[in-house]
Amino acid sequence: MNITGDMLIGASAVRGQQTRLHAINPATGETLAPVFGGGGEAEAERACALAEAAFDTFRNTPPETRARLLEAIADGIEALGDALIERAHAESGLPLARLQGERGRTAGQLRLFARVLRDGRWQSATLDSALPRRTPPRPDLRLQKIAVGPVAVFGASNFPLAFSVAGGDTASALAAGCPVVVKAHSAHLGTSELVGRVIQKAVADGGLPEGVFSLLVGSGTSIGTALVAHPAIQAVGFTGSRAGGLALVQVASSRPQPIPVYAEMSSINPVFLLPAALRSRGGQIARDLVDSLVLGAGQFCTNPGLVLAQQGDALDAFRAAAVAALQDKAAATMLTPGIHRAYEQGAGQLAEVEGVQRIGLGCAAAGPNQARPALFETTAARFLADHRTQAEVFGPSSLLVVCRDADEMLAVARHLEGQLTATVQADAADHAQAGNLLTVLERKAGRVLFNGYPTGVEVSFAMVHGGPFPATSDTRATSVGASAIERFLRPVCYQNVPAELLPPALQDANPLNLWRLKDGEPVKG
Amino acid sequence: MNITGDMLIGASAVRGQQTRLHAINPATGETLAPVFGGGGEAEAERACALAEAAFDTFRNTPPETRARLLEAIADGIEALGDALIERAHAESGLPLARLQGERGRTAGQLRLFARVLRDGRWQSATLDSALPRRTPPRPDLRLQKIAVGPVAVFGASNFPLAFSVAGGDTASALAAGCPVVVKAHSAHLGTSELVGRVIQKAVADGGLPEGVFSLLVGSGTSIGTALVAHPAIQAVGFTGSRAGGLALVQVASSRPQPIPVYAEMSSINPVFLLPAALRSRGGQIARDLVDSLVLGAGQFCTNPGLVLAQQGDALDAFRAAAVAALQDKAAATMLTPGIHRAYEQGAGQLAEVEGVQRIGLGCAAAGPNQARPALFETTAARFLADHRTQAEVFGPSSLLVVCRDADEMLAVARHLEGQLTATVQADAADHAQAGNLLTVLERKAGRVLFNGYPTGVEVSFAMVHGGPFPATSDTRATSVGASAIERFLRPVCYQNVPAELLPPALQDANPLNLWRLKDGEPVKG
Repeated sequence: MNITGDMLIGASAVRGQQTRLHAINPATGETLAPVFGGGGEAEAERACALAEAAFDTFRNTPPETRARLLEAIADGIEALGDALIERAHAESGLPLARLQGERGRTAGQLRLFARVLRDGRWQSATLDSALPRRTPPRPDLRLQKIAVGPVAVFGASNFPLAFSVAGGDTASALAAGCPVVVKAHSAHLGTSELVGRVIQKAVADGGLPEGVFSLLVGSGTSIGTALVAHPAIQAVGFTGSRAGGLALVQVASSRPQPIPVYAEMSSINPVFLLPAALRSRGGQIARDLVDSLVLGAGQFCTNPGLVLAQQGDALDAFRAAAVAALQDKAAATMLTPGIHRAYEQGAGQLAEVEGVQRIGLGCAAAGPNQARPALFETTAARFLADHRTQAEVFGPSSLLVVCRDADEMLAVARHLEGQLTATVQADAADHAQAGNLLTVLERKAGRVLFNGYPTGVEVSFAMVHGGPFPATSDTRATSVGASAIERFLRPVCYQNVPAELLPPALQDANPLNLWRLKDGEPVKG
Repeated sequence: MNITGDMLIGASAVRGQQTRLHAINPATGETLAPVFGGGGEAEAERACALAEAAFDTFRNTPPETRARLLEAIADGIEALGDALIERAHAESGLPLARLQGERGRTAGQLRLFARVLRDGRWQSATLDSALPRRTPPRPDLRLQKIAVGPVAVFGASNFPLAFSVAGGDTASALAAGCPVVVKAHSAHLGTSELVGRVIQKAVADGGLPEGVFSLLVGSGTSIGTALVAHPAIQAVGFTGSRAGGLALVQVASSRPQPIPVYAEMSSINPVFLLPAALRSRGGQIARDLVDSLVLGAGQFCTNPGLVLAQQGDALDAFRAAAVAALQDKAAATMLTPGIHRAYEQGAGQLAEVEGVQRIGLGCAAAGPNQARPALFETTAARFLADHRTQAEVFGPSSLLVVCRDADEMLAVARHLEGQLTATVQADAADHAQAGNLLTVLERKAGRVLFNGYPTGVEVSFAMVHGGPFPATSDTRATSVGASAIERFLRPVCYQNVPAELLPPALQDANPLNLWRLKDGEPVKG
């Protein structure tokens, strides 16, 4: 499949005339062909108008139709073969094996939502029987969830496949029955076009209205702002920086009709090392933690950017092991020159905070845009006193915070902002302290994990990739896992609607064979 | 029980020193004793600090404990007997029978949430088994929903019991495990205190932390703003005007940590009269619709403020029947002098819109603050051209919009803002047209009903009392029915958490006997 540099607006390829953009190979600094034409308000308007025109047809397709669409997209992405992986590698600097894994995850997400669609619990079908002899009579009441409307999706730089054009936001929105308009991330324009053309073809092959999917390209914020401000758009999915997410929240809440924004923004993912665990396996924890820290050049939303431990001999041994493990770690190419600059700047600023020492470094950079892993240390007292220590440094950098005792560790936990994850390393002897921490951490994070590392986000039913502000803009939601579909649904009650006009999920015969809540009890069939 | 005029802050009665307030009997204009002392920021701060201190204990109580709290509140409200009804009558002008019914509804809501708590589906317990031999291994993942944190509740003027101090917002927030701080509506201060003291006593009798409930009193917006801006508050429930709701949304979204606001604001609740129904039973529809219009002096969020019909003989007969039915309807006392003034002003402004005629009136006012029912008429073309015709006139006023044909009726439906309800009167011969309308109306409203009237909101599992903006500020939620609890919950994932630290809902033994989703399938036991 050729990469042309066009936008995909419905069934058309449209050459943007506003700006010229190209991707850059961060490992070499080279410009990658072709030149992309960036669009503006007119193209956002056209894509949104098509999405609106497609919406009623698309949301009312049988769930099986949308399941097949998602599977066709998954198949199509796999069929792109090495061309996709090589382009994504050139645009992102991410290793080939990592991108192959991410492709598997992307296809797996699409297929999970196909399963979710066939299962049908997402519809929340609920039936309350009429009680005609009650005073006053109770009407027949039936509830289902329906799609909210066209959705705007902004992909992430760090997952050019799994959180991008056909990533979790797009998969869950299409599953819900929402047409999707994606703003391509300028760091991986070619990857975006390849995947976008797969979706465009799957929509056409499925006989669906062309407006089900569009892919916009543009530089700066104007096309994204026009997209979120468009009256047809009813929700926004975003993965990226805190500043970027908050800017979209601002646009969305300033509309005549405000809309929800699901922005997954920033998190430093604290790891708490409890005393018994530190004594019994501090060396192993140090090595595993450093592996988690440098994975993918530290460019994960769940990167462990904060480590907390209580002072003492076991901590000294842990620190020595971590510093030793870190010094063998290679510098790795970051996604973009801009992200690399931000890492250098963030790590430099942290080093200058009073009371913060840099205690370990990985190997020096051996090429353009490579990040040198770094470990910093401070005291809990300094951490509590200076909010700069809590800022995310996106990349392979972490801050070890030394606490006097369990109470001070708990105080640090209480002081934290909202997080995607919080991790506890604990042996059985630590469980009393761990229980106290858990009560605090479940208020601070969307996922609390024990004796593991936060990188690695399973795509399943029980996953929550979300969390209190500023980890996300909406703590009620997850952007990974089956529940992600709920972001793009709203409930509607049908009162005394004639049988022949009832939607399939709510018909007496239960043609979709759903689990439904009938008069308060789950029943099937 | 005496009414003292104090605020209830935790276990204490606190005399506000900032302002002096009193309720007014709208039927007589008389001032009602006692004088209430209004508080300010200091009292909001104290109530919120107590709520925060109570939160971890309260959210971790067994669901059965909270179920009993809700039942004790319901019992206590009923035990207030006539004193409560008489005070509410004096403060609101609402008829005694209506208030007795509302008391039953209020107790019923509290008991529904006790059932919801015992049923436990609200916890969304979800278990994904570990797959240790997979590459990479899958961890043990378990999801439950937990309380978001302390909640601020602003009661409605028009339901001094069911949407006020112990109304649906409070019941669902307490059920979720959220401490509640209520700002009493200044129109029914005495009713608020009576109910507040019942909750205060139930909290104490249940051995729960005092911060589980507080009741603030204040004039103007300063105490409400302080409450919503307080960092402890994590969500807001509000029922009232569009201006009031949007002001709270603004405060909530300007916080360093923005929080969700569930504001139920304004709706004109369109009623579509389809041709066959209009021909076969237009006279009956006219009489029933006028009954619905004047019920409770038209002071329902679901009042039918807009009626749409196609021109022709059947419409002429309907119009005549409606005008005749209306002219016998008494004027009725409105809730407050302010609401009465706003009604007079709104109906007056509507009458002055070009192309709008007043075609019917009820009986003239026979006492202070009485609203005279009114019916207006315009054409679909005027309605589409002038947005003033779409403004809510809170009270017994409705606008008949005459459409040329089915297409124009559909155009009007598409033009509508978001609504709480949309109603279709349709016979079997109307079903093709009704199906087209339904596709539009399910996007416009939280509840679509056939061959009934929108007033009357059942408290059950399938109810949705919500809808797209501006009907509410959050279209994903309902403020009535079992699903209302979802507003005050957020999901947390527990990864590889040791068995002895798992919350009860997620323990292998399923001690709460919940329906849970295990590896994607619902199971119990």
